[in-house]
Amino acid sequence: MASNGPVKDKVLTLETLNPCVKVMEYAVRGPIVARAGAIEAELKQGANKPFKRVTKANIGDCHATGQKPITFIRQVLALVTYPDVLMKSPDFPEDAKKRAQRILGACRGNSIGSYTESPGLLAIRENIAKYIKERDGYPCEPIDIAMCTGASDGIKSILTLLLTGKPGTERAGIMIPVPQYPLYSAALAEYNAYPIHYYLNEDNHWGLDVAELKRALNEAKANCKPRAICVINPGNPTGQVLTKDNIQNIIKFAHENKLFILADEVYQHNVYAKGSQFFSFKKVLMEMGTPYNTMELASFMSASKGFMGECGYRGGYTEVINLDPEVKAMYNKSISAKLCPPVSGQAVMDVITNPPQKGEPSFEQFTKEKETVLAQLNEKAKLVTSLFNSIEGITCNEVQGAMYAFPRLHLPAKAVEAAKAAGQTPDSFYCFALLEETGICTVPGSGFGEKPGTYHFRITILPQVEELKEVLGHFKDFHLKFMAQYK
Amino acid sequence: MASNGPVKDKVLTLETLNPCVKVMEYAVRGPIVARAGAIEAELKQGANKPFKRVTKANIGDCHATGQKPITFIRQVLALVTYPDVLMKSPDFPEDAKKRAQRILGACRGNSIGSYTESPGLLAIRENIAKYIKERDGYPCEPIDIAMCTGASDGIKSILTLLLTGKPGTERAGIMIPVPQYPLYSAALAEYNAYPIHYYLNEDNHWGLDVAELKRALNEAKANCKPRAICVINPGNPTGQVLTKDNIQNIIKFAHENKLFILADEVYQHNVYAKGSQFFSFKKVLMEMGTPYNTMELASFMSASKGFMGECGYRGGYTEVINLDPEVKAMYNKSISAKLCPPVSGQAVMDVITNPPQKGEPSFEQFTKEKETVLAQLNEKAKLVTSLFNSIEGITCNEVQGAMYAFPRLHLPAKAVEAAKAAGQTPDSFYCFALLEETGICTVPGSGFGEKPGTYHFRITILPQVEELKEVLGHFKDFHLKFMAQYK
Repeated sequence: MASNGPVKDKVLTLETLNPCVKVMEYAVRGPIVARAGAIEAELKQGANKPFKRVTKANIGDCHATGQKPITFIRQVLALVTYPDVLMKSPDFPEDAKKRAQRILGACRGNSIGSYTESPGLLAIRENIAKYIKERDGYPCEPIDIAMCTGASDGIKSILTLLLTGKPGTERAGIMIPVPQYPLYSAALAEYNAYPIHYYLNEDNHWGLDVAELKRALNEAKANCKPRAICVINPGNPTGQVLTKDNIQNIIKFAHENKLFILADEVYQHNVYAKGSQFFSFKKVLMEMGTPYNTMELASFMSASKGFMGECGYRGGYTEVINLDPEVKAMYNKSISAKLCPPVSGQAVMDVITNPPQKGEPSFEQFTKEKETVLAQLNEKAKLVTSLFNSIEGITCNEVQGAMYAFPRLHLPAKAVEAAKAAGQTPDSFYCFALLEETGICTVPGSGFGEKPGTYHFRITILPQVEELKEVLGHFKDFHLKFMAQYK
Repeated sequence: MASNGPVKDKVLTLETLNPCVKVMEYAVRGPIVARAGAIEAELKQGANKPFKRVTKANIGDCHATGQKPITFIRQVLALVTYPDVLMKSPDFPEDAKKRAQRILGACRGNSIGSYTESPGLLAIRENIAKYIKERDGYPCEPIDIAMCTGASDGIKSILTLLLTGKPGTERAGIMIPVPQYPLYSAALAEYNAYPIHYYLNEDNHWGLDVAELKRALNEAKANCKPRAICVINPGNPTGQVLTKDNIQNIIKFAHENKLFILADEVYQHNVYAKGSQFFSFKKVLMEMGTPYNTMELASFMSASKGFMGECGYRGGYTEVINLDPEVKAMYNKSISAKLCPPVSGQAVMDVITNPPQKGEPSFEQFTKEKETVLAQLNEKAKLVTSLFNSIEGITCNEVQGAMYAFPRLHLPAKAVEAAKAAGQTPDSFYCFALLEETGICTVPGSGFGEKPGTYHFRITILPQVEELKEVLGHFKDFHLKFMAQYK
């Protein structure tokens, strides 16, 4: 086979490989997901298992779990793809055609096959700016928007600016939550930056505790140059929605310590709990006035989450405010070598930020589809929260937002010993057993980080309601059996 | 304005910004392109100029210059975007529907809105592997294919593996051609790797000269750890197509010096000159047998060039062969944190590598559209080559392939002095004057690198034939005037 030459003469071996790549981890697609894939293949070949299919509750992949695409988004996308024929088709409503025409008019040669400006089409950035302005009640300029290939790409572009280019204790220190979506730890490992881990407070709805932020920062100062703080709101994997008060305190802390704020706000449409509300970091910072309203902030949004769940299009944007103009120019230069984000993903962001308006032919259907998805997510968030809190040996903060529950496992000492004997973390041991016995694929809490001695797992709330009920039933049976076995 | 807070308190200033970002340059979208954009805006506002429109001949952006999308590609793309309605439409041929159905069948939830496997859908990688096997006559496995967000993304992923993670003379040395497509210099600057510049031989059709490769490598050994050699074939910006003999010599050189080969083969469909033929590095390396056929090689392909020119979809793939299996696993891990390349771009690659076959309803139209594009490029390559060689003060190697001419300017001493007085390189000075007087936007050779004391510019051959003739006429007038002025 072409892939397996003799190793001795290789340029790249585990010894010579970039050591930063070696230490990278990305648990959401880690070994448990590989095992889930292998089990799926076994099932296809007729293997006898105690379940009929694998439930991939490891990743926020909406359409994969049966959510239907929003019709209007796909209509606009089809129109910009093949306008010569479809613009004349009676199958498409006028408001979709109008949006498609506007996008095509902004594309060179009227084709989405052309490169756009590096930060994305100005016409689309105008809609994004309008959306942000309406959301927050503060001005937003298209020149502060840079579209990206999913939020991950935007986050990495900003992190790149913050690196010091120096080794050892001169490395850039970036504050990241524990638990956290592992893109952050993976990117910091790749860039040889120093992760300053701060623990979210599980006892207070996974909120941010300023005393804990101070502890983390002070302990890290000997090891790095602290540059920035990342906050994920609504939370991934933790499902919390930060209060305005909490955000204000974080902003004050960042100001005192001269930190650039990275606000990962990709779940801004996903808020379910009564009394919870999404406040953007920009809005709060603007409301706070001087000296906070001139702080450097990058906010990230994605086409992959919310009500649309268009993960495959890889759309997203970054809004950066209050950058030093010279730094802003360097940022623009740094993204120009990537040419441009996928234009179809840009078009998805256009529809999300410029949806059908009252009086337009698609308004009713669009609104109904959007609200149905969000209402179902709401129902599932409550279902999951209440189920986990009804089982012995599990506690779970309310899923206030985003798409995940992050329940805590109170495992018996025998289970912890059995895990150690198997060379696994206790939560990996648990999650692998869950997968083998029920086909439910989750991600062990250790992949996101957790307080020592605590064990969790992340499960998405995405399966369709009836399926989710069934999954939770199987989960409960497994859990009680597992607890009895190791009691 | 939200963007301009007071600078003194900023986390990021030019002093604290990642120094690697500071030194990055990407000439294809550099200051001359910014000026071209400004001129376009001036024209829109009614400015009086000696020309009516800006001709963007600075970037290989096919549809932007009037090339029409290939119908079959867009049909398949529209079908996978909005299948519920379009799969039933009589406007779409059966072979397009068949391909769309196969792609959707491979997507979770039958939606291109789902994430795919990190290296892309297996069903599409199977078609890519088949395409490569047929192209080269050697086996190719889907597990050796990783799709990417345009070739640039694939190239950066491989470069990342090759970094040493060490500073100073321990940095990874990567051999790159001069002149070269500036993605390479930009990525190496960003990664703090050491660029080992080797000069292409302008006197021998921009071929690679082994003596020059040796010189470059030997001189660099004191400054870095040499790890890899990048070769662009067909050449960008130089338009050459390497002979098999030349490729064999490069492979031998890489073997002797234990270098990983990065073969940028995105223009593999773009070969025009009589007697020129595209040979992939993989094919040549396989033909050469032991010990060459176990060498580590990455080959890059793109949806943006060729006959399709679908730049906006950001599709592409990397084939890696002969990797140490442990390194291969690390490579797969490293791309997993990017989730997956845009699925619509993956679908474009599917059609390119699995076009309509004889007997299928779309075969004739597809073949005609493809051949028309390539025949026009052929005509334009000849037009450009002969025009440049007919003008005093310019010499130009034959445009054998790719999409660019890279003519050499033999500038009078007075022009060189005038450039110095203006604080510009002589070729920048020339290209800015060309832009201001004719509206033709090109890229100065200094953006790609050139031998000291030589001056060039890159111009695409993409404008439509009649427009290109007109452009070349204006160019000639400008050039003769410029030469007379500085004689």
